[in-house]
Amino acid sequence: MGLLIVLSGPAGVGKGTVCTALRKRMPELVYSVSATTRQPRPGEIDGVNYFFKTKEQFLKLIEADEMLEYAEYVGNYYGTPRSFVEETLAAGKNVILEIEVQGAVKVKEKFPGAIMVFLLPPSFDELKARITGRGTESMDTINTRMNVAAQEMSLLSHYDYAVMNDEIERACDKIRSIIIAENCRRERLPAHILHMAAAAEKA
Amino acid sequence: MGLLIVLSGPAGVGKGTVCTALRKRMPELVYSVSATTRQPRPGEIDGVNYFFKTKEQFLKLIEADEMLEYAEYVGNYYGTPRSFVEETLAAGKNVILEIEVQGAVKVKEKFPGAIMVFLLPPSFDELKARITGRGTESMDTINTRMNVAAQEMSLLSHYDYAVMNDEIERACDKIRSIIIAENCRRERLPAHILHMAAAAEKA
Repeated sequence: MGLLIVLSGPAGVGKGTVCTALRKRMPELVYSVSATTRQPRPGEIDGVNYFFKTKEQFLKLIEADEMLEYAEYVGNYYGTPRSFVEETLAAGKNVILEIEVQGAVKVKEKFPGAIMVFLLPPSFDELKARITGRGTESMDTINTRMNVAAQEMSLLSHYDYAVMNDEIERACDKIRSIIIAENCRRERLPAHILHMAAAAEKA
Repeated sequence: MGLLIVLSGPAGVGKGTVCTALRKRMPELVYSVSATTRQPRPGEIDGVNYFFKTKEQFLKLIEADEMLEYAEYVGNYYGTPRSFVEETLAAGKNVILEIEVQGAVKVKEKFPGAIMVFLLPPSFDELKARITGRGTESMDTINTRMNVAAQEMSLLSHYDYAVMNDEIERACDKIRSIIIAENCRRERLPAHILHMAAAAEKA
């Protein structure tokens, strides 16, 4: 079985950027492509950036318990297809999900062995600056986003690891280290190594 | 508090070589110098390679519970002084011990939070080759060493992580990853980060 790594953190913390950099550094890591009902943007490819679905298709997938987690956001659905994750893990490959904090908590319920990594902003002021700096949003929009970020921060307790995104390469190195370390856990030793220990006892 | 990393593994697996390479890569890691009653070899410096002690001094340290673990080997004592480890950890620095398998298990009893890393030979045959290849030992000596190695392998179950020493740099990278990952565990988050999460909830 491969490992399921869930990378999450408050909106605006830079999950997407860190995940992209990490995948470049660890090309062996399989990225779980999300499904969405929103329209493709120019340049986006079905099956690469997202699996683009109609609302009807998406609702059917939910009904068939084919979504590990999903959420509605500004009128569109976003979710993680279950079968791709399960099949890739069964093939012994490590899978990374880069998803919102609440969806991540749902994934952990379904995969208790998932490695949960929470990406932290360097400071709450920094997170505020990133949220505010995204565009020319109204104060109401900014306040709503800050409330959401605060709720998201409060879910930190569901996570195994916390990595500060102060510098992309440093954050990447830490997440890479977490994945390597988890693969070295004694209880995950491949059978032939345990056989070696058993053979040694008999020798 | 710093982390206590215990690097161990069967005799002949290459603990010393890997530990030296790791310290070059992670100079911030504090190495716990062992105490011994054996004579210094040419070039060995007191306090760098070992703390050289008389047998009388060593026995007094044991009596004063100043040894985290110790063992007698070919008529000489070897051990890990407690106060240096405790003081360095209290100063917030990570400490690495490179010690024998049974001593390591004793350290874990005294420091349940210790991160236990077991260095594995690429195969049992490879370990045999390393033990045999050390010199022109008799078959009796080799058999005794193989029995010891087998007993040592059987203590693997006391360890948190297992790293195969198939290639020094690769093994080093894995141990470095384990140390970085353990420092990222959520329960080890520094207080000011937990305050950030709490502040976020109130905001």
